[in-house]
Amino acid sequence: MTIHLTVVNPNTTRSMTDLIEAEARRVAGLDVVVTGRTPTMGPASIESHYDEALAVPGLLEVIRNDTVADAFVLACFGDPGLDAAREVAGRPVIGIAEAAMKTASLLGRSFSVVTTLSRTMGRAWDLTRTYGLERQCAGVHACDIPVLELDDDIDRTNAVILAFAKNALAADGSDAIVLGCAGMAGLPELLSSQLGVPVVDGVAAATVLAEGVVRLGLHPSTHGELAPPPPKPYTGILAPFGT
Amino acid sequence: MTIHLTVVNPNTTRSMTDLIEAEARRVAGLDVVVTGRTPTMGPASIESHYDEALAVPGLLEVIRNDTVADAFVLACFGDPGLDAAREVAGRPVIGIAEAAMKTASLLGRSFSVVTTLSRTMGRAWDLTRTYGLERQCAGVHACDIPVLELDDDIDRTNAVILAFAKNALAADGSDAIVLGCAGMAGLPELLSSQLGVPVVDGVAAATVLAEGVVRLGLHPSTHGELAPPPPKPYTGILAPFGT
Amino acid sequence: MTIHLTVVNPNTTRSMTDLIEAEARRVAGLDVVVTGRTPTMGPASIESHYDEALAVPGLLEVIRNDTVADAFVLACFGDPGLDAAREVAGRPVIGIAEAAMKTASLLGRSFSVVTTLSRTMGRAWDLTRTYGLERQCAGVHACDIPVLELDDDIDRTNAVILAFAKNALAADGSDAIVLGCAGMAGLPELLSSQLGVPVVDGVAAATVLAEGVVRLGLHPSTHGELAPPPPKPYTGILAPFGT
Amino acid sequence: MTIHLTVVNPNTTRSMTDLIEAEARRVAGLDVVVTGRTPTMGPASIESHYDEALAVPGLLEVIRNDTVADAFVLACFGDPGLDAAREVAGRPVIGIAEAAMKTASLLGRSFSVVTTLSRTMGRAWDLTRTYGLERQCAGVHACDIPVLELDDDIDRTNAVILAFAKNALAADGSDAIVLGCAGMAGLPELLSSQLGVPVVDGVAAATVLAEGVVRLGLHPSTHGELAPPPPKPYTGILAPFGT
Amino acid sequence: MTIHLTVVNPNTTRSMTDLIEAEARRVAGLDVVVTGRTPTMGPASIESHYDEALAVPGLLEVIRNDTVADAFVLACFGDPGLDAAREVAGRPVIGIAEAAMKTASLLGRSFSVVTTLSRTMGRAWDLTRTYGLERQCAGVHACDIPVLELDDDIDRTNAVILAFAKNALAADGSDAIVLGCAGMAGLPELLSSQLGVPVVDGVAAATVLAEGVVRLGLHPSTHGELAPPPPKPYTGILAPFGT
Amino acid sequence: MTIHLTVVNPNTTRSMTDLIEAEARRVAGLDVVVTGRTPTMGPASIESHYDEALAVPGLLEVIRNDTVADAFVLACFGDPGLDAAREVAGRPVIGIAEAAMKTASLLGRSFSVVTTLSRTMGRAWDLTRTYGLERQCAGVHACDIPVLELDDDIDRTNAVILAFAKNALAADGSDAIVLGCAGMAGLPELLSSQLGVPVVDGVAAATVLAEGVVRLGLHPSTHGELAPPPPKPYTGILAPFGT
Repeated sequence: MTIHLTVVNPNTTRSMTDLIEAEARRVAGLDVVVTGRTPTMGPASIESHYDEALAVPGLLEVIRNDTVADAFVLACFGDPGLDAAREVAGRPVIGIAEAAMKTASLLGRSFSVVTTLSRTMGRAWDLTRTYGLERQCAGVHACDIPVLELDDDIDRTNAVILAFAKNALAADGSDAIVLGCAGMAGLPELLSSQLGVPVVDGVAAATVLAEGVVRLGLHPSTHGELAPPPPKPYTGILAPFGT
Repeated sequence: MTIHLTVVNPNTTRSMTDLIEAEARRVAGLDVVVTGRTPTMGPASIESHYDEALAVPGLLEVIRNDTVADAFVLACFGDPGLDAAREVAGRPVIGIAEAAMKTASLLGRSFSVVTTLSRTMGRAWDLTRTYGLERQCAGVHACDIPVLELDDDIDRTNAVILAFAKNALAADGSDAIVLGCAGMAGLPELLSSQLGVPVVDGVAAATVLAEGVVRLGLHPSTHGELAPPPPKPYTGILAPFGT
Repeated sequence: MTIHLTVVNPNTTRSMTDLIEAEARRVAGLDVVVTGRTPTMGPASIESHYDEALAVPGLLEVIRNDTVADAFVLACFGDPGLDAAREVAGRPVIGIAEAAMKTASLLGRSFSVVTTLSRTMGRAWDLTRTYGLERQCAGVHACDIPVLELDDDIDRTNAVILAFAKNALAADGSDAIVLGCAGMAGLPELLSSQLGVPVVDGVAAATVLAEGVVRLGLHPSTHGELAPPPPKPYTGILAPFGT
Repeated sequence: MTIHLTVVNPNTTRSMTDLIEAEARRVAGLDVVVTGRTPTMGPASIESHYDEALAVPGLLEVIRNDTVADAFVLACFGDPGLDAAREVAGRPVIGIAEAAMKTASLLGRSFSVVTTLSRTMGRAWDLTRTYGLERQCAGVHACDIPVLELDDDIDRTNAVILAFAKNALAADGSDAIVLGCAGMAGLPELLSSQLGVPVVDGVAAATVLAEGVVRLGLHPSTHGELAPPPPKPYTGILAPFGT
Repeated sequence: MTIHLTVVNPNTTRSMTDLIEAEARRVAGLDVVVTGRTPTMGPASIESHYDEALAVPGLLEVIRNDTVADAFVLACFGDPGLDAAREVAGRPVIGIAEAAMKTASLLGRSFSVVTTLSRTMGRAWDLTRTYGLERQCAGVHACDIPVLELDDDIDRTNAVILAFAKNALAADGSDAIVLGCAGMAGLPELLSSQLGVPVVDGVAAATVLAEGVVRLGLHPSTHGELAPPPPKPYTGILAPFGT
Repeated sequence: MTIHLTVVNPNTTRSMTDLIEAEARRVAGLDVVVTGRTPTMGPASIESHYDEALAVPGLLEVIRNDTVADAFVLACFGDPGLDAAREVAGRPVIGIAEAAMKTASLLGRSFSVVTTLSRTMGRAWDLTRTYGLERQCAGVHACDIPVLELDDDIDRTNAVILAFAKNALAADGSDAIVLGCAGMAGLPELLSSQLGVPVVDGVAAATVLAEGVVRLGLHPSTHGELAPPPPKPYTGILAPFGT
């Protein structure tokens, strides 16, 4: 049996899709085929509630058009549109924030999040509450590197995040680090060895979770809140989303 | 001084915009000008996470294009895109779920929500938690009338909701009712007199709150999480949302 | 239709009643008549649980004797006797702490409270929990100016509170300020412009909320926990409170 | 060493003071002198927020005038004025709701409260939250016997409460009963044997807690929130409460 | 790379070890070697806090003696001794309750637990709180089949649990089932197809989580609360546990 | 009537049993006989989850063999095995963490815990949540003196803990101190007078609570979760624990 995973990059920057796809492939099992996808519409990066809201149509289009995937990974740390994605996918959809936080909670007593922009810290805290992990999250720290500059100078990025993570562990008394941006995929191996604590990247974590859920043979419920949305007409440039 | 309020209907059904605008006008003060707006894109009604997510681009467009309003009312009980709306508005934006629940909490010890479809109950509970009112919300009850059929037979709608509200008060031990859909605007007066408890419609509640906040001279913070979103390119049919 | 609001000062200092009445008038709508009232019994200011408890008989007397008001504002940041007031009023009663906190929560992601004496900080936190806003309240800060000295030197008071508010915003990462004493009415306009964030005074906030609730035509429930108290004899100097 | 405990009945009905005093004596240690006190002012019984608020001046007067007690028991299940009492007492003050709930939590996994009037159920839930026991409290049940009729026919009262307690244990899945009124002192021994679970009366529970705290040699903090209230003038019939 | 997983049965009944080992093998990846282990000491089944406490020495012995495993699965739904196991393992340890609940939370909005004995329901609720999932857990239901009788008549067991699960979904409004006993491993496939909702068994869920965490290359922190315990002498029959 | 209390030291260090027994005697009433007991198996001190888990068999053996005690005190601040102990005791069992925290909560608004090793801080926070006192606990502070070195130099120990307690009161804004180790019994009297706030030792607090519960005539429920565990065979060195 081959398992097909689609990793959706909710922003429209193709180089980030490539990064994410590569990291997902690195951790997936032998029998897993990973495909990265970039939406045809939406923001170049996600750094505000506004960007996040406007990333959702594009990622929903990707999911609706994909009939091959056994499960999806949603590769933005805000987990944008996760409930809507689950309604239309009819297959498991794993958000990388949910995956990273739940994985970190298996390995230590509490974790600190190191993220990009300060203005997204509130969203990170909101997600800890959505997932019931507000107590395990000991702190959220913003390094204030814009998303698309993370890979400008990977050594500098690693150094900055290392410094923030060290400070977070000391200040928060935590024993694990969660990386708060899909653009940080690829960093955890080096950081883990430098810090001596588990460093969890959501793209990798969501990939193994999605693979695991498929292997368990589990499908989302076909009725209830996450059942397919009631069909209806849509208007204007969003008319193709109607059903 | 004249106060300008724009009441945004997040779905594309114009008759619902008319209903909402009328109800807002009914409760607004003497010096308030109320304008109802319908988006140019999106779903005909909002009955799923999918609909809710895809209603957001249209309502954000309305807000970005409106340079007259002193404040906005967002007239869907899911409060879709509220944070994004606050980022781009630079003026107060009041969601009707937040308004209805906070108003009900001023008048009684606890409230019950009577809403439309069962599948939206989880979203209603999520909102009680977002607003810190999960304890005051004693129950959420779905009458399972689709949104656009609410005004097919207004007497029958009133009778159904009256029955659900009576049952909710008894089952939940609550002493106020919150109506869980913008399409129920217009019902509370009769229901209040029939039930002997306050019945709160969010459109009316949000209108007086929006007016009040304007009268207090308060503007949202110009920095922090709700500051204007960082400018960036957008792609595809959503390119006009770029900045 | 004229709306009658009575603003009750729970302490016995008449100059404070005047200040409060003036602020309520400033923000009320065109068709609102505002009356300030001072109790005939109780403490000169409220700075402890003891003062707060002993302010309640006086304010209940004011409310019971007032047959004109459509709604009441209770103008002490501890919201003393709010449930008892609601039982005997049979009309809406809005406490200024509840009003200020709920209004602030409409405008920003979190707020900081700047109050008078350190010993009242616990009470402020208690109220955030009563109103479900403990998460939105990012901090409570005491400037340790006694209530009745707030208006000794209004420029100095403004300067002190400005300094505390600036520090609170930075330390708490909040984006709104709530003023934690009725005696601070009159300060928010200048402070808002100095700080660039909304500064909410409870007297003004409660006035527009009370007006709004009256305009919605909502009355408290006539049965349940806040129904009129069961009649019974009272003894001693409190005998007039019996029914 | 002799320990002096004063048991304050916050209502003005002397027969209830006698009942409470007797129950406190029954459980106190050999070296404890118990004195019951009735206030000179206030309601004949406490059955509303209004009664509760107006019971506080009388009980504060009792405490301020008592220079002998090593500790106080506050014998109304609403724990009225507990914080204010602690400020003026300078000695331990134990409320019977707090005592009953904390004692029940030592003996079983969860408890159900059986109280008098339905309208006080909200207050009971509030107290569970104040004391951090909302999770251990599995239910609150009102038998709707008015406070002063509890001892009209003690056999009937016992039978009614037995029936409510049985139902509560089954419906709530709890394994202990808390009696929600000082007027139920004297009932627990028979009820415990009839039910096979611990039945906790707050008067008895508060008495042994008060005695225990005295024996530990512990005094409340002399600074902080519960330090003596700042002195100030009081007006009108409450002028004697000024300092 | 071969991944070695040890699945520890915390009770001493070897047939249950066999069942668990088989289920873990069924879901593990191609490159995973699964070994089941039975302790040399402790209770034949775990049905009380007493049994649970006394199962811990045996499972700790298994873990300390196992130098091959890359990660451990702890196969009792009470997750007994999980923190202690993590301290001595120095490798990931996944409890089946944690695994089942976190997996269910990825697939639906809320889940119901179907467990064995009524007396273990409180423990199940405790674990939902430990893992931050008390809100997603919509109910806990006990079928009151003793642990060691689950496989006496597998068709009857399936029928009973099917009936309890159907009732749980309806009563709780949930959209997933968590099986609350390691002895229910093997049931989920049939139940899922019969119910139309995901049915999660903890043994399978913990196996794929353990495999995933190993594949991520993550190790628990080497310092902090879960670092190896400080060495010290032990006495009596437990002397071999000293270090 | 004579009351028999057994104070169980969960570690195997006899000098610590003596200390605990002496402190319990000091505060017990005139009619109370206190007996200290040391287990025959287990760790010399409890400083990890591992030690705590392995201390439970020994303390359960002590309780099962003791037919004289009316109630038990469990004298380790982790309250190890408390639920299991309650199942087998059939009489009240009071843990010292529960007792200390609940007693402190009667005397002040919030407390700080001063404990021994940093790695036990998480466990202390867990217990505050178990007992519903996470809000009243304002901080946990570790002095990092190993348990068995506390009485090496009692003056130095007192000085260190005094310094930590002073700092805790200032940093946390609390008004009571809870000592987080049975080995600190004997310190509170001096510390209370030095600090001017109540300092609560759990051994003393649990003793007066246990005595009080016996005096109330209360027994744990004979059915439900804490009823005697179901009998079954045990294997290996733990075979004597079978029933």
